[in-house]
Amino acid sequence: MQIDPNLSLILASKSPRRSYLLEQAGIPFTVRTADVEEVYPDDLPVMEIAPYLAALKATGAFHLLEKDNEVLLTADSVVLIDGKKYGKPKDREMAVATLRKLSGNEHTVVTGCCLKSKFKERIFAGVTKVFFNKLSDEEINWYLDTSAPYDKAGAYGIQDWVGLACINRIEGTYPNVMGLPVDLVYKELKHW
Amino acid sequence: MQIDPNLSLILASKSPRRSYLLEQAGIPFTVRTADVEEVYPDDLPVMEIAPYLAALKATGAFHLLEKDNEVLLTADSVVLIDGKKYGKPKDREMAVATLRKLSGNEHTVVTGCCLKSKFKERIFAGVTKVFFNKLSDEEINWYLDTSAPYDKAGAYGIQDWVGLACINRIEGTYPNVMGLPVDLVYKELKHW
Repeated sequence: MQIDPNLSLILASKSPRRSYLLEQAGIPFTVRTADVEEVYPDDLPVMEIAPYLAALKATGAFHLLEKDNEVLLTADSVVLIDGKKYGKPKDREMAVATLRKLSGNEHTVVTGCCLKSKFKERIFAGVTKVFFNKLSDEEINWYLDTSAPYDKAGAYGIQDWVGLACINRIEGTYPNVMGLPVDLVYKELKHW
Repeated sequence: MQIDPNLSLILASKSPRRSYLLEQAGIPFTVRTADVEEVYPDDLPVMEIAPYLAALKATGAFHLLEKDNEVLLTADSVVLIDGKKYGKPKDREMAVATLRKLSGNEHTVVTGCCLKSKFKERIFAGVTKVFFNKLSDEEINWYLDTSAPYDKAGAYGIQDWVGLACINRIEGTYPNVMGLPVDLVYKELKHW
């Protein structure tokens, strides 16, 4: 690990998966969160939504920075199927509809990130293509009976049964699909 | 999940990662292990080594099958760098040499599997390409100071720091790199 030990990383995200990934990667951090309304211009190209929202969250959480050696990390993941953004499903019906769109199809996960200190800001995004096998309605219902993917963009967790058993290929990184492109975060912090 | 509930899966592997993946995927199983000597013909093409060894392990563990509804699962993972097989590193020196080969390079992980009952046998393999960033000697030494990848083919765990922070892309599935192509196992069991 080649991150300056004087640097103090502040994760401004409530996602347990982002905390888990940083912990697994052995990158020290503290969680401090702020509520930021996630709005973006209607005409923003879909690939730019996630990094735009990550930057917006960093602006909204900037007051959390206390010391000069602190670096804020924010992130936002979006799922794009056939060029259209799918968010967190509001209810079971929407989760079923999303999973039917994922079935036998490829989609793209974009996780935008923002690293921001009092002196510097870096915005970047990880992009991963994900390929699902055909899902039967029985499988979709079984997944929703046994899991509650309502806090997840695209209505699935890649670490859940449906991700492990029904994804036949990804192109990009797995942590990026879980919610954080750890490789890109590490690369930026190494040269911070 | 569409696996016949009467089917009883017996995992004949000591790998904690294979147990972990089946547990995460919610596929019920029991562990029973046998010791099998892992030998293969010198002239076997490298892509065939893992499925060959999985089948060999299934033959050696066949006596563990007690009932007609039991299905044995064995697996073997090999790491191929520049067309050459890299096994589990015997010592730190070999781990350093392997990690230096992985650095800034792509490699292939082949996990061969065998499913075997008293009536039927299926042999198959998952193939994933993995792309590592350049690793400095400082990073290699830090990884080996903080982890002990001596039970892992290729001297790394994709779920460790080095996998999370230094892999910039995979093509294929992540569980296959961890040790089991869960998607292929599920597909076979669904149609068993």
